[in-house]
Amino acid sequence: MRLQDLRTPAALVDPRVVGRNTERLSRRIAGHGARLRPHVKTHKTVEAGRLQVLGNFGGITVSTLAEARAFAAAGFRDITWAVPIPPAKAAEAAALARELEALHLLVDSDEAAAALETQATAGSRLSVFLKLDCGYHRAGVDPESPDSVRLARRLADAPHLDFRGVLAHAGHSYACRDPEEVRAVARQEREVSVDFADRLRDAGVRVPEVSIGSTPTVTWAESLEGVTEVRPGNYAFFDALQAAIGSCRLEDAAFSVLASVIGCYPARGRLVLDAGALALSKDPGPTHVDPECGFGAIRTLRDEAVPLRLVSLSQEHGAVDGPGDVVARFPVGTRLRVIPNHSCLASALHERYLVVEAERVVGEWRPVRGW
Amino acid sequence: MRLQDLRTPAALVDPRVVGRNTERLSRRIAGHGARLRPHVKTHKTVEAGRLQVLGNFGGITVSTLAEARAFAAAGFRDITWAVPIPPAKAAEAAALARELEALHLLVDSDEAAAALETQATAGSRLSVFLKLDCGYHRAGVDPESPDSVRLARRLADAPHLDFRGVLAHAGHSYACRDPEEVRAVARQEREVSVDFADRLRDAGVRVPEVSIGSTPTVTWAESLEGVTEVRPGNYAFFDALQAAIGSCRLEDAAFSVLASVIGCYPARGRLVLDAGALALSKDPGPTHVDPECGFGAIRTLRDEAVPLRLVSLSQEHGAVDGPGDVVARFPVGTRLRVIPNHSCLASALHERYLVVEAERVVGEWRPVRGW
Repeated sequence: MRLQDLRTPAALVDPRVVGRNTERLSRRIAGHGARLRPHVKTHKTVEAGRLQVLGNFGGITVSTLAEARAFAAAGFRDITWAVPIPPAKAAEAAALARELEALHLLVDSDEAAAALETQATAGSRLSVFLKLDCGYHRAGVDPESPDSVRLARRLADAPHLDFRGVLAHAGHSYACRDPEEVRAVARQEREVSVDFADRLRDAGVRVPEVSIGSTPTVTWAESLEGVTEVRPGNYAFFDALQAAIGSCRLEDAAFSVLASVIGCYPARGRLVLDAGALALSKDPGPTHVDPECGFGAIRTLRDEAVPLRLVSLSQEHGAVDGPGDVVARFPVGTRLRVIPNHSCLASALHERYLVVEAERVVGEWRPVRGW
Repeated sequence: MRLQDLRTPAALVDPRVVGRNTERLSRRIAGHGARLRPHVKTHKTVEAGRLQVLGNFGGITVSTLAEARAFAAAGFRDITWAVPIPPAKAAEAAALARELEALHLLVDSDEAAAALETQATAGSRLSVFLKLDCGYHRAGVDPESPDSVRLARRLADAPHLDFRGVLAHAGHSYACRDPEEVRAVARQEREVSVDFADRLRDAGVRVPEVSIGSTPTVTWAESLEGVTEVRPGNYAFFDALQAAIGSCRLEDAAFSVLASVIGCYPARGRLVLDAGALALSKDPGPTHVDPECGFGAIRTLRDEAVPLRLVSLSQEHGAVDGPGDVVARFPVGTRLRVIPNHSCLASALHERYLVVEAERVVGEWRPVRGW
């Protein structure tokens, strides 16, 4: 099946680009002497996960228990669920942990600590990280608060918990405008985490692991000293935002959405695509770099840039603006590809990704869905 | 199963509220003397679709061929696919049309007209509407252009097409700030459509139908004179945007997302929910009414308002800001409900909706997915 003949909208993945991206990042991290525990949340497919762990130690990071279960079923044995655990899911997580070499869980509250203490037993210990706020201010304990040291000690002292260390994520790196700004966030992510781990060690708490990382920060980090593992994920697919902030080029985007032109109005400088918010997601993208970025980058089937802007998305329509003469080059029925602003959110809207090599579909990958 | 015991995030639907919303709008439209052909794209479930057609003529509107097929399989016989048809789907649509009383298709280009002309035969006629731009400027022909009259005549003269009339959608009503502004858009939607239909009639083209409508405009329209049918959809569920622009109250929202508090940080005035962009969608909501609206309205399980703002969404985290003393009232483990900004996009992220009556789950609805 050729791209030209596919039903649209359709999610496309190029496994050679995934392979190139994962190999490049694996090499970079190995050069820093840290372990790479790739995040699989961007694609949620076993196939891309296998490319990510190639040449690494095999551990992965997930964002949901559903991912943890699916990857466990596919043979992944060492999994970190990198979201603070809701106490109500402690029993479910403990049951899954018993089937694996390790299921590492995140805690940043006494409520969650108590829930894990209740589930853990001598015969069924639970591995736990303290989630640390390294400046993103989303989740995680405050590194400056004495209460954070107290909570770490509680985890370390709990009879049937294995306290692994501290875990942070500099999600604010997505708000950077260029590699220089990313490097500053990467320094902060590393320093806050390593300093806090050292403070715990000074307080007598054993801290085997310091786990950090986002795609931008691990791409540009100048040092990972004191860091034992990193957990980027987006780099497997990349997207228009990562290209805009300098993590990659648009040509490195492994995921795109194939769309058909369903409206062509040169007189008002407008195309309409059959890919709307339900095919692309409404992530606003890198507006901090380019306020006019629109909802994704438009490319031809041969991956050429198209000088048009995807200005708005409604449920099943993507509205594209540009000069009338450019619009007229893409009559109703034309196929175009859109590199979404945020591949993690766009890919999650599709039940399957068509695997494309040289403009032909050679297979499909089925992502995990739900929680 | 009580709400308190559910896994989160979970999509919740209250069928009594759906019934109240659909009954109220059906009465309103009947009072105007127009037919209601409800749109099912917001919920994509047969169950809510049946409530929408109750007391009406039975026809529905869909946004995808997948919806058309699923609703056809459930016994719906008169369906309008209200998106300009991509030429490549003409054969598929024609095959489905043969199984139904009517599958009405939309055209606003010669390419799409040609594709339908090719599929239609004496024994298998196709019903077609001309999609008209009534001021939204997304899709549709320009009512002022002579070329639009020419295209209508082409459709009317095609030997095996049934030209049904003109169809418009005032999607720009979502950008209104209050009912007064909506009434102005409703006037425009009706007048542009009726005037253009009259112009076609003056040109000798038979125009049986004038089909218009969005939830805001049909809610506030002062007249539907000359309009034969209306196609609102969001009103079945409503959402935070519709409440903000005056289409409903927050209490009329039939769809919400149940979430658990997974982080509680009174010192920095922050809660974190386990409902992020993959549970709620990143629709920015009614920022034109309230720039501080955030990503949805937070309610307790008993539907009380909570004075906190859902300020940002990442993939699996919802970050909530508020005064430390309010934040402290919702410790880790607390369940809250979020009424999303845009129920059409949030509901599409869920494989099932739990049907809730009096804080108990009594069933589930499975929406149609894909295209």
